[in-house]
Amino acid sequence: MRILGIDPGLRTLGWGVIDVDGSRMSHVANGLCPSEGETLAERLLSIFDQLSAVVRTHAPEAAAVEQTFVNKDGAGTLKLGQARGVALLVPAQAGLSIGEYAPNTVKKTVVGVGHAAKEQVMHMVRLQLPGCNPAGPDAADALAVAICHAHHAFSRMGSARVVA
Amino acid sequence: MRILGIDPGLRTLGWGVIDVDGSRMSHVANGLCPSEGETLAERLLSIFDQLSAVVRTHAPEAAAVEQTFVNKDGAGTLKLGQARGVALLVPAQAGLSIGEYAPNTVKKTVVGVGHAAKEQVMHMVRLQLPGCNPAGPDAADALAVAICHAHHAFSRMGSARVVA
Repeated sequence: MRILGIDPGLRTLGWGVIDVDGSRMSHVANGLCPSEGETLAERLLSIFDQLSAVVRTHAPEAAAVEQTFVNKDGAGTLKLGQARGVALLVPAQAGLSIGEYAPNTVKKTVVGVGHAAKEQVMHMVRLQLPGCNPAGPDAADALAVAICHAHHAFSRMGSARVVA
Repeated sequence: MRILGIDPGLRTLGWGVIDVDGSRMSHVANGLCPSEGETLAERLLSIFDQLSAVVRTHAPEAAAVEQTFVNKDGAGTLKLGQARGVALLVPAQAGLSIGEYAPNTVKKTVVGVGHAAKEQVMHMVRLQLPGCNPAGPDAADALAVAICHAHHAFSRMGSARVVA
């Protein structure tokens, strides 16, 4: 199964693609979509176009998106929400199933603890996906979301096998 | 000039199209895009598809989107942000210029006061666009945003003429 992980953001959206074969994972590609344009609408379109190109190029079969932490900064939450809407729309348009995971769940799965620093996430992503060189912290986060989805999908498949 | 007004919402997005010829305005069409689907991504895709169809059918030359009121409900703001991201993406994809107006500006332009009830907006929209029958309050709000954009665009054009 090929999984696209997405870390949504309005300035920069991180993405990472991994292949999963049973319990084996391998790195396919990762990168950043910087939002370009003067207006909010142009920046959203820029993210949409770049992420759509990633889906066309790497043809993932599933997607996983990091859930957004809602804080007291309403204006920041709104901005992130707008970017997240686009991040969910692109894989939905491609007909992919989409998993959503809270940041703490992702960190717990990949690093072992819920409150891990960005450097730890980067380190553990490199360890679990040999040969991968994340384009930046947002790309490492996106690969971590993909790894998290692989673990959850695999354990679900495992249970299904037991049931069958 | 043909203007598409949009009132973004995750449950229901309202839209309205008007034609503007100098200071004359006429109603073209209006409607609601209810978001359908079980997951958030499916609902966003449903709004995207319906709004894209509206743009294809009515071929507006400009768009106007109501700005979102940021309140203390972070989860609500995030949901609305996601719907708003899609509402901005569709006209941007069609290459339309997009105006954004605060709810109070829209009400002040259409009703005369910033804090008008939904019924007043509906009433004034019907008065200013003879023969129009809004599909619901969200559609009336969307027509009000389009009217607001027409007034602002017209006054800008007016000033430009004076300068020239």
